Amino acid sequence: MIRTIHSHEGHLGWDRALEPVHFAKSGETIAFCCQDAGHGHYHHDSTAADILTADPAKANPLTGPVYVDGAAPGDALKVTIHEFTPSGFGWSAIIPGFGLLADQFREPRLKLWDYDTAAQRPAVFNDIASVPLRPFIGTIGVAMAEPGNHSVIPPRRVGGNMDIRDIAAGTTLYLPVEVEGVLLSLGDTHAAQGDGEVCGTAIESAMDVSITVEVVKDAAPKTPHFSTPGPIARHLDAAGYEVTTGIGPDLMLAARDAVSAMIDHLSRTRKLAPEDAYMLCSVAGDLKISEIVDAPNWVVSFYFPRIVFG
Amino acid sequence: MIRTIHSHEGHLGWDRALEPVHFAKSGETIAFCCQDAGHGHYHHDSTAADILTADPAKANPLTGPVYVDGAAPGDALKVTIHEFTPSGFGWSAIIPGFGLLADQFREPRLKLWDYDTAAQRPAVFNDIASVPLRPFIGTIGVAMAEPGNHSVIPPRRVGGNMDIRDIAAGTTLYLPVEVEGVLLSLGDTHAAQGDGEVCGTAIESAMDVSITVEVVKDAAPKTPHFSTPGPIARHLDAAGYEVTTGIGPDLMLAARDAVSAMIDHLSRTRKLAPEDAYMLCSVAGDLKISEIVDAPNWVVSFYFPRIVFG
Repeated sequence: MIRTIHSHEGHLGWDRALEPVHFAKSGETIAFCCQDAGHGHYHHDSTAADILTADPAKANPLTGPVYVDGAAPGDALKVTIHEFTPSGFGWSAIIPGFGLLADQFREPRLKLWDYDTAAQRPAVFNDIASVPLRPFIGTIGVAMAEPGNHSVIPPRRVGGNMDIRDIAAGTTLYLPVEVEGVLLSLGDTHAAQGDGEVCGTAIESAMDVSITVEVVKDAAPKTPHFSTPGPIARHLDAAGYEVTTGIGPDLMLAARDAVSAMIDHLSRTRKLAPEDAYMLCSVAGDLKISEIVDAPNWVVSFYFPRIVFG
Repeated sequence: MIRTIHSHEGHLGWDRALEPVHFAKSGETIAFCCQDAGHGHYHHDSTAADILTADPAKANPLTGPVYVDGAAPGDALKVTIHEFTPSGFGWSAIIPGFGLLADQFREPRLKLWDYDTAAQRPAVFNDIASVPLRPFIGTIGVAMAEPGNHSVIPPRRVGGNMDIRDIAAGTTLYLPVEVEGVLLSLGDTHAAQGDGEVCGTAIESAMDVSITVEVVKDAAPKTPHFSTPGPIARHLDAAGYEVTTGIGPDLMLAARDAVSAMIDHLSRTRKLAPEDAYMLCSVAGDLKISEIVDAPNWVVSFYFPRIVFG
């Protein structure tokens, strides 16, 4: 019987002074019950107006921290991700002031999802678009050496809110240990997201996830490192991609241009509201740096999988 | 019988005043013979010392330009890429002063490749690493409205040296027309490259490529747009990926950190010289923007396909 850490055994913010909710042995397998990033604020009857009443101070609650025996500064914590038990309910939102194109999308917008809890069938966005699922952990990290409470929103060298869509079942993640016992926490589970999470939200969804923790002595990476056990995009790639580009000397502006061009393209060719195109880009499309050496101009590309349109 | 544009029918730099080497009809299929980006400087007996004698003014020669009947400013030029006939000889290099980590890699380094001209078998890098191939066009673009000769090195809104690894067989590319007749040129063919082209070179290789050009009236994209007919990474993804990250407020620094971490990882775990790891990263690994919304820190990830090691 493995230990289950329940979602009320959690915290907001990262802090090395937090009391552990569980003391694990290296090699132990643990189940984490994760709230969604909206701490359960959204329900089936929620509307866009509810976005404005969400308390930002409660965003992104984490389950943990778990103390791992024998972990000391300079070690790596190896986390093997086994299995997700998704809730089947999720939400995506355009949150005013948040997201890559916050200056262009100022009104709140909410999309509620009911999806296959086995994550085998795509989740229906509307009558023309469905999004293949691949659950992953949006936020997974460990306590930093620096004392104090650190916001959970930005990711850091110790991980945290990395929103890397391949921290999924089968992946092995290595995090640097900075405090004795490491103090691992996780949450912010997602049913699907593209690289970039461009509108600021994924298919945000509560899930249970089982992992194994292991201490690897004197093996701290400078920043998180992971291995995927196999292909990462076969649920998305069968029908190919539509791709837009941003070209110029600033990677951020190039990324914005590429995503803006895709929103224009999807709005024009698929008759989607720009807000819907933006949310679809966030849950299904990928930002790539195609070229970063031909000075002074770089190329950032945005890849949207056509399978979303069947 | 389609028209073949030979590689001596070419130019250096982009200039709207260039004489066309061919006048094509919209819908015409044309074969382009492309030199490699080193204008044939490298041969089987070349060494790293030859990098220092290459004339930068002759880099990246283009075949063309081709005038396309009926193309006018505001139109799109649609280019459908059919087939590559690779030469089977290629080179990769660390060129002092060039590349994402030019400050860390100051010495010239040259790798010569002999590869399967059908591009079906991976190209051997050394006794432990081989790189799956997928030929593509590194530089494809059209004349800009602005008069004068513009360097071929940076890509621009009209395309050019984009080094996007999916401008490969079957892809359809849309470029904005800025001058009457559009004046299409291409060259800088690559047998393989990862997203980013991080060391500054791919598997640089002369190839012939056949394409169809077509004018689409009043459909100019702001920046290049393309569609891939199907999956883009199945030649690479079967064994999964090793992934490093860079996390911080600057995408360029995060990209550098992610690539540096992968070079460290490959050097340590595969006993590769850092220079060799850097070149392998350039020809096989991908830079992705995993997260660009959780201010103030973004996540850039570098994905290296384990299939390279068999």
